[in-house]
Amino acid sequence: MCELLGMSANVPTDICFSFAGLIQRGGGTGPHSDGWGIAFYEGDGYREFRDPHPSIHSPIARLICDYPIKSRVVISHIRQANVGQISLANTHPFTRELWGQHWSAAHNGQLANYQALALGTYLPVGSTDSEYVICWLLNQIRQHFPVPPAQAHTLWQQVHTWCEELRRLGVFNLLLSNGEYLFAYCSTKLHWLTRRAPFGEAHLCDLEMQVDFQQHTGDQDIVTVIATEPLTSNEAWQKMQPGELVVFQAGEKVYQAFGRF
Amino acid sequence: MCELLGMSANVPTDICFSFAGLIQRGGGTGPHSDGWGIAFYEGDGYREFRDPHPSIHSPIARLICDYPIKSRVVISHIRQANVGQISLANTHPFTRELWGQHWSAAHNGQLANYQALALGTYLPVGSTDSEYVICWLLNQIRQHFPVPPAQAHTLWQQVHTWCEELRRLGVFNLLLSNGEYLFAYCSTKLHWLTRRAPFGEAHLCDLEMQVDFQQHTGDQDIVTVIATEPLTSNEAWQKMQPGELVVFQAGEKVYQAFGRF
Repeated sequence: MCELLGMSANVPTDICFSFAGLIQRGGGTGPHSDGWGIAFYEGDGYREFRDPHPSIHSPIARLICDYPIKSRVVISHIRQANVGQISLANTHPFTRELWGQHWSAAHNGQLANYQALALGTYLPVGSTDSEYVICWLLNQIRQHFPVPPAQAHTLWQQVHTWCEELRRLGVFNLLLSNGEYLFAYCSTKLHWLTRRAPFGEAHLCDLEMQVDFQQHTGDQDIVTVIATEPLTSNEAWQKMQPGELVVFQAGEKVYQAFGRF
Repeated sequence: MCELLGMSANVPTDICFSFAGLIQRGGGTGPHSDGWGIAFYEGDGYREFRDPHPSIHSPIARLICDYPIKSRVVISHIRQANVGQISLANTHPFTRELWGQHWSAAHNGQLANYQALALGTYLPVGSTDSEYVICWLLNQIRQHFPVPPAQAHTLWQQVHTWCEELRRLGVFNLLLSNGEYLFAYCSTKLHWLTRRAPFGEAHLCDLEMQVDFQQHTGDQDIVTVIATEPLTSNEAWQKMQPGELVVFQAGEKVYQAFGRF
């Protein structure tokens, strides 16, 4: 299994604090030492950092902690390999271009019989179940929506339907984004919280570290963080239900749908 | 204009020395201070680092110099913006998946009337002429070769034809790779050299720095470096001709074709 971390915000925000907690689980407080990756959306742009080595020993991961990259959407993943060897090609997040946008996704879980799903435009590069089904999901979106739909909720509903299909194949916790929407789909385990004024202090679970968000934020800032397990010990994280999809936009929850089986 | 740097090698090789020279031109000895990027192919995997800030001041660029990432193919670019604002979305290299491979490219030059080229599967995310025509080129490959051709030289010949078409629109120096082949196409300015045993010492042009490759290489190593301008002052760089395409594989030149107009 692996751990996921996501962020959606209405202003460019750095994720140094949460990421510092997450990477402890990559060979430190957790066993997820088979690589890690993080994707940042900055304006229309996108960049990602990936490393097939344990995050806790990675100089690139240390740089991400120390160099505040301001972003509105972040997706990160630390890996404990099950399907697919430890390699850069098998390191999340996986990215493809659709509608002239960078779509990026990371998966936690393990799936059976996924090879029966027919692929199309997007093909996997590595050998994981995760990349395979993310390609399938993007192919579904591309086929059903050759251009972005006028009503975004038709996209959100369809994505929920396809995620439910994938959940029938095993464990499928997913973070997916095009830089505007952040889709969080829960199969077994995913938590989120939204920080907004009045901001307070937060304490990491995995590291002796706290931050007073009041000193780093403006009154209008809205920042949602999503993680497999709560990253802080003194905040009220919302636990998602199996089959639940929540879509965030600019830090706010804009859509929620629940499991059908 | 911008500067390009590429590498093709038969063993995983780091590019720290050449990259240290290149980034001096990004705000130091050269004016290319509008961002930089570098793509590494490692096995089937691919990763890239991009930054819309001057390379000479970038902590990420410093990390690349200090942290030897071993790779068989590298493409790098430092930018002096002409078409498209300074932003992450407009920072080379540009990447798309084709045939289950990461294809990556960087361009030096400026093109006119490129918007008349019809696009297909691949769409640009940013607003540069470079990304537009790279998408067009990958669409051409995809349409003509739905699967990788049995004879690679049919691909190389076609890529040369399409590059010649683009050269008619302006200045089009290109580095393109799928992790196996490195295509170097010259419109106005591109140089390359191949290092192999017996290895010697090399001196950077842009920085007081030399390296004795004999201490860092094996007898069988073959490493080709391609750059807009020679990076070292004491080696014999080959100057490419307008319209010339050279394809490298595992450090060796495997194809060469010359301009037709």
